[in-house]
Amino acid sequence: MTATVQGAGCPVPHRETERILLGHGSGGQLSAALLRDVIAPALASGAPGAIVDDAAVLEVPGMPDGGSPRPGGSLVFSTDAFVVNPREFPGGCIGDLAVNGTINDLAMMGGRPLALSLAYIIEEGLPVEELRRVSAAVGRAAATAGVPIVTGDTKVVGRGAADGIYLVTSGVGVTGAVRPSASRVQAGDAVLLSGPIAAHGMAVMSAREDFGFDAEILSDTAPLHRMVADLLAAAPATHTLRDPTRGGLASALNEIAETAGIGVDLDEAALPVAEPVRAACDLLGLDPMHVANEGICVAFVPAAQASAALAAMRARPEGVGAVAIGRAVADHPGRVTVRTLIGSQRIVDPLIGEQLPRIC
Amino acid sequence: MTATVQGAGCPVPHRETERILLGHGSGGQLSAALLRDVIAPALASGAPGAIVDDAAVLEVPGMPDGGSPRPGGSLVFSTDAFVVNPREFPGGCIGDLAVNGTINDLAMMGGRPLALSLAYIIEEGLPVEELRRVSAAVGRAAATAGVPIVTGDTKVVGRGAADGIYLVTSGVGVTGAVRPSASRVQAGDAVLLSGPIAAHGMAVMSAREDFGFDAEILSDTAPLHRMVADLLAAAPATHTLRDPTRGGLASALNEIAETAGIGVDLDEAALPVAEPVRAACDLLGLDPMHVANEGICVAFVPAAQASAALAAMRARPEGVGAVAIGRAVADHPGRVTVRTLIGSQRIVDPLIGEQLPRIC
Repeated sequence: MTATVQGAGCPVPHRETERILLGHGSGGQLSAALLRDVIAPALASGAPGAIVDDAAVLEVPGMPDGGSPRPGGSLVFSTDAFVVNPREFPGGCIGDLAVNGTINDLAMMGGRPLALSLAYIIEEGLPVEELRRVSAAVGRAAATAGVPIVTGDTKVVGRGAADGIYLVTSGVGVTGAVRPSASRVQAGDAVLLSGPIAAHGMAVMSAREDFGFDAEILSDTAPLHRMVADLLAAAPATHTLRDPTRGGLASALNEIAETAGIGVDLDEAALPVAEPVRAACDLLGLDPMHVANEGICVAFVPAAQASAALAAMRARPEGVGAVAIGRAVADHPGRVTVRTLIGSQRIVDPLIGEQLPRIC
Repeated sequence: MTATVQGAGCPVPHRETERILLGHGSGGQLSAALLRDVIAPALASGAPGAIVDDAAVLEVPGMPDGGSPRPGGSLVFSTDAFVVNPREFPGGCIGDLAVNGTINDLAMMGGRPLALSLAYIIEEGLPVEELRRVSAAVGRAAATAGVPIVTGDTKVVGRGAADGIYLVTSGVGVTGAVRPSASRVQAGDAVLLSGPIAAHGMAVMSAREDFGFDAEILSDTAPLHRMVADLLAAAPATHTLRDPTRGGLASALNEIAETAGIGVDLDEAALPVAEPVRAACDLLGLDPMHVANEGICVAFVPAAQASAALAAMRARPEGVGAVAIGRAVADHPGRVTVRTLIGSQRIVDPLIGEQLPRIC
């Protein structure tokens, strides 16, 4: 059967049937567009105001809070799916990511994690031994973080309907006195970073392909809730926190700049990148600011409390490399710029397509 | 290369490398064994006492309760993965299941649902229009139930690494005065069922294969939290609640019998099965008690409150078909029996393998 081409040469726009691309899962601009243009409006078709963010705060009437001056306490609630490939990489595995990733989402809202849930989607034929190994990693990570797995679900799909095993964790926590939020960020805030960037993404890449990277590139996967609690106690005026996972530091900072309506100026000389990670990024032509992290966070803190915040972060092993990397500015709202090593200033765009699929 | 068969004929047991089977996702005996023998011990390797059940109760120090005589209130927390195939079937779709299934897990713990999270795992190439349709179904189901989706995550995997789209929902709720638990069931309890069985499983089967079933077999997917709240108010001595999803009524009752150390005697004549559903089960040689449900629950209630409980259930559209189907007995602990239409008594086993893969 042949199709008649109607209106060939006509200027009416030709619109192909849209399909999901790998880039829609990048955590960058395509992800944001999918959420904004497709998922959120559709979810809201029945329930106006539905919000789909990394984590949500639930007001529970009558629940005492964690020291907040406001009446009534609140829960934080978050969920994350993990499809990392390969599932084991230098420094961690999918089980560590599933525990630490959700704990970190709660921590970024100022929440003290109480408990996690765990759902498996398993491909028929997965060696039971691997399920045992992944589950043991989940158990160890939960024990290390002090946050128990309390409920779960296991589904099995046929061969070819998944790639081994996927994990989805959700977490609940209680909020404390400080409620970080991107909308609170103000010009003048110091931009602090808890440790070197791009380690997770390059560790997964090194496990995926044989690039001949040195073995010392380890994923930074780690639970950040204890460091965040110390940071918020030392710097209660902290405006916002963000863990720059998919899409990297560049995407996280751009989101904050856009939400807060401020600009962000970074100092490239201050940006910590471990030397082997920088070399690997150079080899692959990747900007370390676009590469995923799993164990660091960025904090926007009023300048007067920046030193106290840095000291609190550095007192924890997971924050020992904390540094100030720039500041929020009133200029160029919604934009992130970096002053390069040679003194010029360039714009830092968020990740657009998909650079490293299935990085978490 | 040929392998030398060592010790051929020797009685040393030959143990093949174990692999995950579809039956491990059945909700029946293989699922229970995988959880008991592999997942739970491995999770507990780092955190002794980790429990993975359909839903968990979290004690939150200082949180007021919902009327319980005990000091301190509690949260309920649950998660479910949805991999149903096909994703659209008579009476519902994967989006309805994802909302109603998690709400029902909370309700079975006596919880009042507060909010849901939603994670997508999407195969590259999925039409965006289908994502929009699924998301709209989620939004409508959430609005119907009055329980908002408040947080989410979206991951995309390559072609062939998933089958279209999978959903994982988690839910949090607050417990009320009644804490149903299988361990509270006692001999003498009436066994109540809120509506006819096997509709969901047969609706999905009819959509999957062209069996020539009548079109009137619709999935029973529905949120049960309002009916459960009324039931618990009318019969506060209710001992336990269970939604018989994967593995069907037979598996749910066997689990309760085993946990409570009681027997269950059913009356086949009282067991509601819609006529087209029964005909479809007969055609495929399936026992309706092994077929999945998504919108009914079973309640074990002291005999003195059974009438009040039934009246409360029947006052809601989702419980209009509620009936008493049997009772808990001291005989044959851990076993479920049914008195058949011809007066004999037979044992009702839980589902063992996998009868209808990817039914939810």
